[in-house]
Amino acid sequence: MLNPQRTIAELKELRALTADEHGAQRVAWTDTWLKAREWFKGKLEGLPVEQHYDAAGNFWVTLKGQSEKALLLGGHLDSVPNGGWLDGCMNVLVGLEVLRRIHEEYGGTPPITVRLVDWADEEGARFGRSLLGSSAFSGTLDPEAEKDRTDKDGIRLEEALRRCGVEMSRMLEASSEQKNAAAYLEIHIEQGPVLLDMDLPLGVVLGTFGVERHAIRFLGQAAHSGSTPMHRRKDAFLAAAKMAEEIYRITDRNGGVSTIGSCVTKPGIVTSVVADCTITLDQRHLDAQALARLKAEAVEASQRFAREGGLSDPEWSRIWHIHPILFHPNLIEFCDEAIREVAGTSHRLPSGPLHDAAEVARAGIPTVMMFTQSLYGISHNKIEDTKEEHLELAVRAFDRLADKTMRWILQQ
Amino acid sequence: MLNPQRTIAELKELRALTADEHGAQRVAWTDTWLKAREWFKGKLEGLPVEQHYDAAGNFWVTLKGQSEKALLLGGHLDSVPNGGWLDGCMNVLVGLEVLRRIHEEYGGTPPITVRLVDWADEEGARFGRSLLGSSAFSGTLDPEAEKDRTDKDGIRLEEALRRCGVEMSRMLEASSEQKNAAAYLEIHIEQGPVLLDMDLPLGVVLGTFGVERHAIRFLGQAAHSGSTPMHRRKDAFLAAAKMAEEIYRITDRNGGVSTIGSCVTKPGIVTSVVADCTITLDQRHLDAQALARLKAEAVEASQRFAREGGLSDPEWSRIWHIHPILFHPNLIEFCDEAIREVAGTSHRLPSGPLHDAAEVARAGIPTVMMFTQSLYGISHNKIEDTKEEHLELAVRAFDRLADKTMRWILQQ
Repeated sequence: MLNPQRTIAELKELRALTADEHGAQRVAWTDTWLKAREWFKGKLEGLPVEQHYDAAGNFWVTLKGQSEKALLLGGHLDSVPNGGWLDGCMNVLVGLEVLRRIHEEYGGTPPITVRLVDWADEEGARFGRSLLGSSAFSGTLDPEAEKDRTDKDGIRLEEALRRCGVEMSRMLEASSEQKNAAAYLEIHIEQGPVLLDMDLPLGVVLGTFGVERHAIRFLGQAAHSGSTPMHRRKDAFLAAAKMAEEIYRITDRNGGVSTIGSCVTKPGIVTSVVADCTITLDQRHLDAQALARLKAEAVEASQRFAREGGLSDPEWSRIWHIHPILFHPNLIEFCDEAIREVAGTSHRLPSGPLHDAAEVARAGIPTVMMFTQSLYGISHNKIEDTKEEHLELAVRAFDRLADKTMRWILQQ
Repeated sequence: MLNPQRTIAELKELRALTADEHGAQRVAWTDTWLKAREWFKGKLEGLPVEQHYDAAGNFWVTLKGQSEKALLLGGHLDSVPNGGWLDGCMNVLVGLEVLRRIHEEYGGTPPITVRLVDWADEEGARFGRSLLGSSAFSGTLDPEAEKDRTDKDGIRLEEALRRCGVEMSRMLEASSEQKNAAAYLEIHIEQGPVLLDMDLPLGVVLGTFGVERHAIRFLGQAAHSGSTPMHRRKDAFLAAAKMAEEIYRITDRNGGVSTIGSCVTKPGIVTSVVADCTITLDQRHLDAQALARLKAEAVEASQRFAREGGLSDPEWSRIWHIHPILFHPNLIEFCDEAIREVAGTSHRLPSGPLHDAAEVARAGIPTVMMFTQSLYGISHNKIEDTKEEHLELAVRAFDRLADKTMRWILQQ
């Protein structure tokens, strides 16, 4: 009854409809995204499901069961500009296939309610606020703080949402969709190379990394490049540059990942020692204590490097922070079993990027994610891909996970 | 007869005339600069000197002697915007005081000719081409290649010079001023902290550093900061940052100075490993072979760091290059003697920045420079200063240097 080939065909159909030669263009709150959502609605014809948009623009498809307790499956049709063909939409279409199987298997009315959700604006590609719809659902969104965001053409977020029928002042009403939710499952392409390196098609996601994101500013002294002896310099770039190797040593000791993504030098001219150097540091870990150690060791190192260079203590300013979000232990076990049954071997890994599943977990709903291998270890790029045989395994494994989770919900 | 206090008073008079609360504003080819030059002409009244502007706008003051062989003394009245009160003009006014002393001592006609030159546009502050007048004199200037330079208001160099009576197509005719030149002496405030650190008022300049100036581009791979394991990264910033410490090790082995003045990262966002990192490297040494070693060792290190990070060889592109220019050994001895006679102790040091003296030396004229201590080790800044007692020593030592050089020219 389950037909993974249909899912692959539907993914290709969506790609043909919403991608150009640069990749997927389903950016949330644009016409192409609305077209993708209309196309998806068309796929529901013949299924006895209730459909509606919630107050945050999330699209809900409900197959009512004997119990009101609900199993939630979710994903997002929106993409980054020039994105891949699988990121986000695979979750929705695999979820649809599982919904079809459940509908067929139980002859219309499953023992519990099954709901499929297409989250609105997971990527935040146009306005810079990711997880918009799911954070309205979980209640972590502050619409007032976000509504004045603008896109590159100066259009305000509030205005763009209104055009799509969403009133920001009412977005938090989407939290009413939490009612009766007993578990949430999401499948996604891995946005890194871990499963690729291990030659595994599928993996269980343990949770999403906590993130510490800072700008670190080193203040030295401008000095003429020709007339200032080396030992007399207060070289802000030297101190900042020492951080580059140090973050690799720190993550080597503590795990997680650390990235210096940018470096800005002032005055930034060829004839002057750098007076002012700011780097950004992004640190991530699944364990809150280890994340705190990553940060503390980086702070200590930055102070040491500043001292070595005759600089004052560097200025740390926090750009963003989120705690690690751990998925549900029982669901992790089910996901592991499902993958082993279908693919032989499973692997447990954290997710570096955030996903809508993190917001659902923050709402207290038992949650787990499954990852499929990414062929080049890459996403947010038109070359993003997964082998068709892995996509087929993904549909089968996710369906088994849904089945195991339904049984677990029934037992409660 | 020599009156150093008069020089100090004249320097203060010029400051009152051409500086504002931000510092000296005698930028070449501006009204304030022309005012300074007019003021200087007034100081020549009563001296039996010939005066003229050459084809490059350099101002020549000639005290004819019994021999046509000429001792040249020089400096520049122009300054950077918001500059110090001594950089450039001290050379001209100390030279003037020495000229007065020679005139008085020999009752009008010294044994050799003495010429004082106010070079036009040493700083290049407005159009970005330093040593403009002196390079026309030496013949290293290519006026055709420079004439289309513009200032920040879009005014062309050629046009600005024409307003001051200089036709660029004729600038190289200034080289006729080389005729009979037997030696060139210049005194300048040190633009670094070497004499300050040694607590010495004066120093002998051995020559000007050769310069190797490059942009170095490291190409890695953009990757998501959350999903890319550390060992899978091709981190362009990591490779570039390793250069920061390495250039200190390289100069420690070889002498000279090396500066990374800027670092640009792309995509330069907090959530991506740096794909593309370009740094600028400025290396200087008085010895041509040592300068070549500085560069070769930096090239080798950059390739090693790229390899360590899984990157291809970095791209080196030369921004600028000049050979070291060594001053005349006999004049260096005379300068050393003159300083020791006046101040007790001397010190020999290279000049990191270029000066008009470098252009004169390139023309094959025996040349030396004397440095005075810079109170904060700083120049091109309104806080630039030298103690008055050091200025007085400077006038006395430079006068002795002129005297020794005159005798040396006479013996030839």
